Parts: sequence; C-alpha cells; structure tokens
Amino acid sequence: MKNSAILLLRCPDRKGLDAAIADFIYWHGGDILHFEQHQAGEERFYLARVEWDLEGFEFDLKDFPKWFAPIAEEFSIRWRITRSHYRPRVAILVSKYDHCLVDLLYRQRIGELACEIPLMISNHPDAKRHADFHDIPFHLIPVTKESKPEAERWQIELLRQNNIELVVLARYMQVLSREFIEQYPQQIINIHHSFLPAFVGAKPHQQAFDRGVKIIGATAHYVTEVLDDGPIIEQAVARISHRDTIEDLVQKGRDLEKVVLSRAVRWHIENRILLYGNKTVIFE
Amino acid sequence: MKNSAILLLRCPDRKGLDAAIADFIYWHGGDILHFEQHQAGEERFYLARVEWDLEGFEFDLKDFPKWFAPIAEEFSIRWRITRSHYRPRVAILVSKYDHCLVDLLYRQRIGELACEIPLMISNHPDAKRHADFHDIPFHLIPVTKESKPEAERWQIELLRQNNIELVVLARYMQVLSREFIEQYPQQIINIHHSFLPAFVGAKPHQQAFDRGVKIIGATAHYVTEVLDDGPIIEQAVARISHRDTIEDLVQKGRDLEKVVLSRAVRWHIENRILLYGNKTVIFE
Amino acid sequence: MKNSAILLLRCPDRKGLDAAIADFIYWHGGDILHFEQHQAGEERFYLARVEWDLEGFEFDLKDFPKWFAPIAEEFSIRWRITRSHYRPRVAILVSKYDHCLVDLLYRQRIGELACEIPLMISNHPDAKRHADFHDIPFHLIPVTKESKPEAERWQIELLRQNNIELVVLARYMQVLSREFIEQYPQQIINIHHSFLPAFVGAKPHQQAFDRGVKIIGATAHYVTEVLDDGPIIEQAVARISHRDTIEDLVQKGRDLEKVVLSRAVRWHIENRILLYGNKTVIFE
Amino acid sequence: MKNSAILLLRCPDRKGLDAAIADFIYWHGGDILHFEQHQAGEERFYLARVEWDLEGFEFDLKDFPKWFAPIAEEFSIRWRITRSHYRPRVAILVSKYDHCLVDLLYRQRIGELACEIPLMISNHPDAKRHADFHDIPFHLIPVTKESKPEAERWQIELLRQNNIELVVLARYMQVLSREFIEQYPQQIINIHHSFLPAFVGAKPHQQAFDRGVKIIGATAHYVTEVLDDGPIIEQAVARISHRDTIEDLVQKGRDLEKVVLSRAVRWHIENRILLYGNKTVIFE
Repeated sequence: MKNSAILLLRCPDRKGLDAAIADFIYWHGGDILHFEQHQAGEERFYLARVEWDLEGFEFDLKDFPKWFAPIAEEFSIRWRITRSHYRPRVAILVSKYDHCLVDLLYRQRIGELACEIPLMISNHPDAKRHADFHDIPFHLIPVTKESKPEAERWQIELLRQNNIELVVLARYMQVLSREFIEQYPQQIINIHHSFLPAFVGAKPHQQAFDRGVKIIGATAHYVTEVLDDGPIIEQAVARISHRDTIEDLVQKGRDLEKVVLSRAVRWHIENRILLYGNKTVIFE
Repeated sequence: MKNSAILLLRCPDRKGLDAAIADFIYWHGGDILHFEQHQAGEERFYLARVEWDLEGFEFDLKDFPKWFAPIAEEFSIRWRITRSHYRPRVAILVSKYDHCLVDLLYRQRIGELACEIPLMISNHPDAKRHADFHDIPFHLIPVTKESKPEAERWQIELLRQNNIELVVLARYMQVLSREFIEQYPQQIINIHHSFLPAFVGAKPHQQAFDRGVKIIGATAHYVTEVLDDGPIIEQAVARISHRDTIEDLVQKGRDLEKVVLSRAVRWHIENRILLYGNKTVIFE
Repeated sequence: MKNSAILLLRCPDRKGLDAAIADFIYWHGGDILHFEQHQAGEERFYLARVEWDLEGFEFDLKDFPKWFAPIAEEFSIRWRITRSHYRPRVAILVSKYDHCLVDLLYRQRIGELACEIPLMISNHPDAKRHADFHDIPFHLIPVTKESKPEAERWQIELLRQNNIELVVLARYMQVLSREFIEQYPQQIINIHHSFLPAFVGAKPHQQAFDRGVKIIGATAHYVTEVLDDGPIIEQAVARISHRDTIEDLVQKGRDLEKVVLSRAVRWHIENRILLYGNKTVIFE
Repeated sequence: MKNSAILLLRCPDRKGLDAAIADFIYWHGGDILHFEQHQAGEERFYLARVEWDLEGFEFDLKDFPKWFAPIAEEFSIRWRITRSHYRPRVAILVSKYDHCLVDLLYRQRIGELACEIPLMISNHPDAKRHADFHDIPFHLIPVTKESKPEAERWQIELLRQNNIELVVLARYMQVLSREFIEQYPQQIINIHHSFLPAFVGAKPHQQAFDRGVKIIGATAHYVTEVLDDGPIIEQAVARISHRDTIEDLVQKGRDLEKVVLSRAVRWHIENRILLYGNKTVIFE
C-alpha cells in the first residue's frame, strides 16, 4: 500500500503558484502522484490537492510546516497536510432509522471507508445491537427539550475524550445547537432526505409527495447554524411516479441516503473536499 | 396505422368500475388495446385511460356521449374521448432562447409529436427564420409593461382564430396574466429551467450556482395563476461539479429543457395526462 | 393492512378478455385495487396482473381454480394466484462477497422484502456471522470440482426440506448444473456484475476496465441453462471515468448490485414479474 | 474572451515532470489557468492538459517547439499545442437519419461547438436543406458496393481541399475502408446507437429489444479498423420497459445519440481528449 502525503491548499491565485508547489515537492525528493487544482469564481481563488509518494521524500511530515513556511507566506496559502495512511476518528450519531448507520458500518468494515469509528451515540436504544455486532462503544443519550443542553454537554465530552475529528449525523433527528456546531466547523456531516434546497426542514418526503414532483433526492452537507443550509457535498436523485406512495418514497429515499452520505464521508476522510464560500470543491 | 379510441376517465372509486367500463367497450364490439387505471390518494380516486381498436366498434364516436351516459351517470364519471388519429392544434410562444423551439419543430416534423403547429408567436423577431423553415405562420407581438394587456388580447385572438388546443411556452419569458391563463385551463405547458420547487422565479441557474448544488434540473408544468406552482408533468436532472460555470449550467440546462418539454407535450397530445388535485398522473 | 388477492394471467389476446376478468371478480364481490395489462409483441400476447380486496369476496381462494376454470378454459389462460399476505420462502446462496447478502438481510428485517428467509447456504464460512446475527439457519457446503454433484444434491435436499420457492444467488460464485436449474424454473435469481449482454462470464469489471467503457452496470436475471443469458429482470448503471481503478469499479459495482438484486427479488416475491419468451414484463 | 494556450502532453512518468512543466510556463511569463494530470495504468503513464493565459507570455506559440524541445527531449514527451481561439475545421458525414446532424448544426450556430463546419457530405439528398439553412457547402456522393472506392476517393479529396481536421459520422451508415480510416487517425468520431460493447454491428435497437434489456445506450468513439471497437469517448443510457416498442427505443435512442455525439465532438475540438492504449482520458 502506498505511503503518500496529501496536501490541501487555498489562497488567492497568483502567477507561479503551480510551479512553486510542484518545485517544492520535487526539490525535496517527492514524486507527485496526483495534482489537481481549481480556480474558483471570477476572482480565481486557488484551491488545490496534491498527493506525492513519501518514498525518498527527504524530511518528515512533522517538519512540513517549517519547510513550507516561506512558500505559504509568500502566497498567503492556508494549507492542511495528512498522510494517506492516516485513519481519522469518526463518531456516528443516530436515532431510530438505522439504514445509513448499518451502511456506514458495513463500508467501514470492508475497507471502503478508511477511518476508525470509536464512538456511536444515539437517543434511542435500538442501534446498540449494530454497535455490538461491530464492537463499537455505544452511548445512549436520551434527548428531551429540557435535557438537551445537558445531553449536548455529555455528547461533546464524549467526542473530546475520543479525539473525534468528524461527526456523522446518520439520520440523527435532533437539531444541534449553535454551540455544538461551532466547536466542529466543517466537521459535521448531515444527510437530509430531500434534494436541497427543495423541501427544507421536517418531513421532506411528505412535502415532495404533496408537491407532486417526479424526482426525489437526498443531500449530504456540512452542518452550519442555519438549518439545512450548509455547503452541499453530494446529492443524488431517483425517479418516482404517481404510483409511488409516501412509503415508496421513503424506501427509494433510503437507497439514495445511504449512497450519498457514504460518499460524502469518504470524500471527507480522504481529504478531497475544500470549501470556497458556502460551496464545496470535490477533488475526486 | 391503428385507428383507435382513447378514453380518459375520472371519478370516485366504486366496486365494479373496471368491469363496467370493460364491458361497455366489449359489448359494443371494441377490442381493448390498453387499459391502465390508478386509484389515487387514501380516498382511492379513480383515474383511467382505455384505448380500443375501432375496427368492428358498432357506433360512431360522435355518439359516444349518448351511449356512455348511463354509465357516466351511475359512477359520476368525468371523461374525455379522442381518436388516436386526431392531431391537436398547438401554438408555440417563444422569446429569444430558441433551443426548445427548434427541438419541438424538429420532433414534430419527423413525426415524434403527432400534432399540428399552425401558430408561432414571439416577442422577438429572431425566431421567424425557424418558422419560415418549417412553414409555420409567425406573429411578432412585442411586449412592454404598458403594451402587455393589448399584446395578450392580440395573442388570445390569434389562439382563437386558429382553434388552438394547447399553448406551449418554449422559454417564453413573459409572465401571463390571470385572465389569459383562465381561458386555457390545463392547456398551457411551461418549461422552467430548475428542479422545481427549488429555484422558483427569475435566474434559476444563477440561484443554483450560488447555492452550490451538485445536480441541476428542468421542470415542465401546467401553468396556473401562481408562478411556477402548477402541476408538474415531467422533470429531469444532470450532474454538475465545481468546474461548471454559469455558462456550463445554462448549456447543460438546455439539453434537459428540450427533453423535458418535448416529453410533456407528447404526453399531453397523446392524452396520457390526468390531473388529481395539483398533481399529474401520467399513463405512459 | 390490506388483505387482497393477486392474480397473474397469460394467454393469447382476444376481444373481451379484460371484461371477462373484471366481470368475474366483480360478480363474486371483489373490489379491484389494481388492474394492469400488457399486450406483448406483434401477436399481442396478453399478460395481466389484477389485485382485488378480499373483503366481501364471496369464496375462499382455495376454491379459485374451480370457479375460474370456465373462463380460463375459454380464453386458454395460464394463471397463478396468491394472497398479498403470503410470504414466500427464500433461500440465499452466497460465496465470499457478502454485500448483497447483508443488504438483502437488512431489507428483509425492516420489512422491505416481504418474505421468509429460512435458509442460507455458502461454500465459505465467512457469511455465518451474518446468518447468526439475523437468526437464519446457515449451512456450509464447500464445493470443489469433484464434490460439486454431491454438494448440489445436498443443496437441493435442503431447499426441498425448507419448501423453498425462490433461490437467490447473492454473488454465489459457482455455476449451477443444468439438473439443479431445471428443478427451479424461473425460481432462481442471479446478480451479474455487468451490464448484460456486455461482459458475459468471468471478471466483468476487468473486462469493462480493459474496454474503456464510460458506464458500468449490474444485471439481475433468472438463471437458465445458458450462462448469463436468462430473462433480464432489472439493470442499473453508474458513470466511471479514466480516474477509476479496477477497485473503484468494484466499489461502484457493489452499490449497483445491491439495488438491482434487491429490486428483482422484491418484484418476484410481490408477484410483479411475468415472462414472455426470454423477456420479463414487470408490473410495477 | 480569454486568449490562452492549451498544451496536451503524454510521456512515461518521472519524478519532477509537473515541476518541469509548470516551471517552464511560469519562467516564460505564462499564468496557468488549468492544470490537470493523470497517471494511467500500473506503469503510471503520464498524461496532462495545461492551459495558460497568453497575456504576458514572452514568446509566440509558433516558437513553442523550439523553446520546449529541451524538456520534451529530457522527458520523452509527445505533445500538441493550440490556442483556445483556434476553431478546428470539421466535416459532417450523414445519411438519412438527420437528428444528430441538425443537433450539431444548432449547437455550432449558438456557439456551443467552437468549430468551423465548411463541409457536409451525404449519400442521400435529404440533408441538403439543412446544409442550405446553415450556409454549409453540401456534397451528394451516392455510395453503392461498386462505387464505394471511387466515392471514398472523392470524399477524401473534399476533406483535403477543405483542410478538415475532424470527421464526424453523424449516423453515416456506410462502413469506411481501412485506407480512409488510416488517413485520419483519432480524427474520425462515430456515434453507435448502442451501449458498446453490447450490440455491435447492424440494428442494435432490434438486438436490444430482442434481448430484453432494461436500459439502452449510445456510444461515441473514435473510428478504427475494427468495427465499433475504437476508443470510447462518451456513453449515455436511458431506461426502457416492456411497454417500449422498437420505435420507442429508436426515439429514446435519438435523444441519447444527440447528447453523446455532441459531447464527444466538443471535447475533441476543445482538446480535452488524450488516448492511452485503446482508452480515452477526458480532461473535463
């Protein structure tokens, strides 16, 4: 298995950027495997993802900040680096509907999602059997209107103790508070069971049914303070017809949600997502 | 080419409906080619489309109302009948963007759309060359805020003179008045360049671009008094990515709009669409 | 939950068929919920699926053959009847890849697949843990070239003992013998990981990769004596690009296979599939 | 409108390639707008597309070969350069079915296809009216089994006189000879009305209908000596059901063919296609 470094970069575009980055890696002995860049918007904001083989690379990645500092400063680059080997620590929050949960656990087990899942939290006891089957610590934290602040403190405490880097809301039916969200900026992914921005909020399948659309969707997005308004990571759709009942929509929706959420999680943990304003750039 | 009758029916469901309809056709010598029914909603409202061969059918279709009256009355059926041979008269209204227009004209010419197009109206002169190429009478009716009532009177006059049965808004950029719409209930089809109900109103591609969606769409719907709110007939979508500019969205959108609008028009002229509340039932 | 009867019919088309069937049900007190028919091919072979509410129906379904005999004889109808309540008995055969297996078990558990699964057979021990999790009897039957006849005898014995009505090959990697197949005509569903008829046989993902296709697929079909040649029940596809490795194809393929196979199984157990020659008619 | 250079490169991968290319452009004053590379296969064959702004670039592109020679030699790079302004000269060959032709002409007229179309050749007179409408020189060259060599000589003569760089077979129903094809390597694009490699050769819709597939497709590919076997550029698919007749397949196929062929042509004339073995790499 390859041992490579993945560097994500963001900065205003300037002549010579690609050359400066490629040169830096080359002169330090790195062999570039992938180089993808994008210049977003009319002002051509520069976003890039570079991956290089660490075989023969001449310094340790923990010294990267020091070595890269002059270039980062010259071009005002904000960057993040990881090793391809690194498996981020992911927590799953779930309520009663467990299709996304079961799907994520399966994909993680067979190696499709290269992450650790050291923590599952639910406000219902039902999901525990899946946690047990996959040997994942499970915490039941019931949430009522009154207990919510206390419940969130407990949740955040667990996330911290487990050094969680990504929180996945796998059909977790509670709205998180602003305080919670602010502690995990661009680190909480939610699945909404509609084609956003259509059918924001509660009961999107019922809304879709009532409006008589011919196609339904699902949307994975980063969670921000405004409900269902964060940067969209991935969407998928399925055709429906007048024959489909609400139950049919729910069933077709499940297949969409599983695929969309798992893809968003995979892109996140593989460091393929950069933000530009309220939009995502996905380096597939 | 087959010579058949197409009967559309709507009524509250009651035991024996299918039998009564199939019997009626059979006892009068009709050979049923297609029989499709749907029971909509929890109250099971009955909607059906029946097509039968007129070879050997024992009375002329102009006498159908008389013969069918007892059954229609017994079951409170609202119905509409046409011959498969019949080619409805369609008018196209268009502004500057002519991709849907050119597409509709081509499909009509090669026989994909079994209708007459005796009338084209535009508020711009550009489309005239296409009307000329296809030998379709063209009327230039400019529309300003002031002249709109007068323009609409002229338009309606033309529709009447030409016995128009369906008005297709092929990217016609003027909002029709309530008075206009009321005269053509469920007889005006519009194409909206978004996946409704997302991005209602002006500049849907810009709205989609700004929101950062990963999929764009197009929607054909019957025009009602509320903008972009009428019964949806057909929708289609296409994937986009961060690489796509507004111009790319517009281009991808054109392909969606052509397919979606032409499909809606075809289903309408082939008598495949029934309304139930604000929703369409499509008997494909 | 509704208590209804589902009748599937096949016969040469003749005037009066729809009327005869609808009448029969009506006169015996049945309230038709769905009536869908199709006339296949130029000779208009008649295929239909009728579902009616048994509330108020005047005889027991076990007497249906007797009562329906005159009509069946008159029109040379071959038919099959079941109650909507009935849950057919399904066996799953699986090898090492367990994504389809896990998917089917999950769907059955949450009620998406209305069947019993009293039997799982595998030539590898790995799947046993999933059988245990879902309390399904599991039989390990290793298969070598030499032991195959003996293994098949054992398999068939198990299928018989368990009164199995449908055999699902959920990525079961052994080719069944003609003798096995003949005992379960139109009762064995296989998933092939290509868009048939492209890439028949072994390693379809490798074949697709080598050919450089831009779209991959999966196909669920009834098993017949000729490999990968039986009637196609369902297919689905996904886009790929030059960036996708064989492993990416395998991963994207998994999502297709799960959806396609489960849909085929669902249509089969809901009595929605009729055969006409080597083709399927799906009454969705 | 931007004035940029587009450079396509192919060579065995070697450490420092990205740096060498980016450096070269930067040191000569070029501002890189897009840089996309791909390392194909296990041997990591390097393919790249670089676009840079010519504003401030210090030498004329006609001197590019001279300046780039040292790098090209060092890395054994095969390359091709064009200006974004350049509009390649395209000939369209067509027979009776004119949907792809009309579609291509429309897209060219509205600017979606940035090319010149100075030549149309057909073995039927029907397409002439479209050529006239778009002011494109039209040549009728009938082809019989006997006249084919003579017809091809005439065709090639016309292609030469018009300095044609790309030949588009827009449902041209004659098989080109090996001699013809060899003169335009990777410069002839064909549309085949099936999802290749399924249904090679004649009457693919009939083949698809007979096999009972649930999805049909269309494939644009470069023409090579082996029929329907050249590198695939683009494919698209559409669902069909048992209700669809051959005519329905043909109609649905038309929409696929138009989209697929026009996309392939656009990618070709925008220099987005590189070949690696018998496969295409598309830099979208």
